[in-house]
Amino acid sequence: MKICIVGLGLIGGSYAMGLSLKGHEIYGIDQSVDVIQYAKENKFIKDGFIDDFSILSECDCIILAIYPQAILDFLKQHNALFKENQIITDVCGVKSSFVRKATLLAGKATYLSHHPMAGKEKIGIQFADYKIFRGANFLITPIDSVNRTAEEVLIGIAHDLDFGRITTISIERHDQMIGFTSQLTHAIAVSLVNSDHDADTVKFIGDSYRDLTRIAMINDALWSELFLENKEYLLEHISSFEAELDILKNALKYNDKDTLKKLFNQSTQIRRKMEK
Amino acid sequence: MKICIVGLGLIGGSYAMGLSLKGHEIYGIDQSVDVIQYAKENKFIKDGFIDDFSILSECDCIILAIYPQAILDFLKQHNALFKENQIITDVCGVKSSFVRKATLLAGKATYLSHHPMAGKEKIGIQFADYKIFRGANFLITPIDSVNRTAEEVLIGIAHDLDFGRITTISIERHDQMIGFTSQLTHAIAVSLVNSDHDADTVKFIGDSYRDLTRIAMINDALWSELFLENKEYLLEHISSFEAELDILKNALKYNDKDTLKKLFNQSTQIRRKMEK
Repeated sequence: MKICIVGLGLIGGSYAMGLSLKGHEIYGIDQSVDVIQYAKENKFIKDGFIDDFSILSECDCIILAIYPQAILDFLKQHNALFKENQIITDVCGVKSSFVRKATLLAGKATYLSHHPMAGKEKIGIQFADYKIFRGANFLITPIDSVNRTAEEVLIGIAHDLDFGRITTISIERHDQMIGFTSQLTHAIAVSLVNSDHDADTVKFIGDSYRDLTRIAMINDALWSELFLENKEYLLEHISSFEAELDILKNALKYNDKDTLKKLFNQSTQIRRKMEK
Repeated sequence: MKICIVGLGLIGGSYAMGLSLKGHEIYGIDQSVDVIQYAKENKFIKDGFIDDFSILSECDCIILAIYPQAILDFLKQHNALFKENQIITDVCGVKSSFVRKATLLAGKATYLSHHPMAGKEKIGIQFADYKIFRGANFLITPIDSVNRTAEEVLIGIAHDLDFGRITTISIERHDQMIGFTSQLTHAIAVSLVNSDHDADTVKFIGDSYRDLTRIAMINDALWSELFLENKEYLLEHISSFEAELDILKNALKYNDKDTLKKLFNQSTQIRRKMEK
């Protein structure tokens, strides 16, 4: 398949790397000459462009690996270049705030959004690695109804990149659940690290603290946008998490060992079901 | 050195495994015949005992790898067997609640507590593995003043098990910091998992959720005891974490992107310093 990836950062770069290894003809568009050069030298792309966008008309699939607001601007600007039978998709971590608008701006092409649930606490193509996708969840997020041809294309890409479970769900359901599993976890990790007021903490940490706080190393520009675009769901999840923490806090306060044990048993059972 | 390990669970078993590999003469005491048999068959111990405690008099060092309350009972019961020049230690995750009492009950022997900051979300000797200690923090926790001979013995054990940073600090300072890095993280993970009220969550998780919630699989008997024995510090840390989460929540509520970015930058900087 002839694929154009717009934005060769960590995720776009990893897509380019993995999909070209699988024999696809990959082109890249990025704002940085250095990034394009790096992607070409490492054979992630066949060719790349900074300000020539004509390649967009020639591809079967366009993958937008840029931020939500940038996606809308990009679609507006290059609207005239999109063709029938083309599929345009994106890899954003929130959907409701822009996918309806993006679909309208895709013109003759079919827009079908998706979300690869994998990443790294790093920014940039030099950290690209398609192996991060192995076994990860892949979410396809149509609005109203799903275009089967476009869905097939995305499923093919997911298989080529070695993703695990593929799920098709509405953009609203996506944002509700991602608010919990992804954004709430980041909010917690950030707050935990920021509540550390001791210079010597590093002497007292074990794997649990390390694991819980790794994602507190966070891309501030991307995540402030993601948080704000999904704020209603995220605020709900924070409240429900705080309510659970209050139950535990009260059990502690009143020396209620039975409730503590009950809470620990419950979390053990729920979490054990998620082991791979 | 001739060492007796009391309690051959995950940690006691891993100590026995690693220390016998380093050439120490290891004996085990446990309530279960099966556990003793397993430890002997796997050459973790030279010999083991269920109800004969005379070996206690013959060892240079006794390592208590049992729960805090069980430690006090054990010391009371076998008090008469302890000798001068013997070192008794324990591996518990909290210290203030019992170490002073334990020191008095050690009789002629020298009591010096320590805390190996490593573990697994598993229970029992069949999961024993001395490699979990590699590079981990090792805390030596004297009361008032430290006995240098006993400290040397513990440092030797830490080196033999390949621990990383070794720090000697008071039991109060230990409990304050462990309340943050260990107990607060477990309280958060448990509450996060218990606030999951959706049957399909597993389809929407990535590595961040997995990492943040692994420790929600928790030994309820051990951790309810640890939480209650350190409740003052833990309650303080929960409050200070909640205060940070509130700052983030308010920034979100009032669309304050600058504050969100500031929080993300702060957590990134603090956490990056802790990378190995």
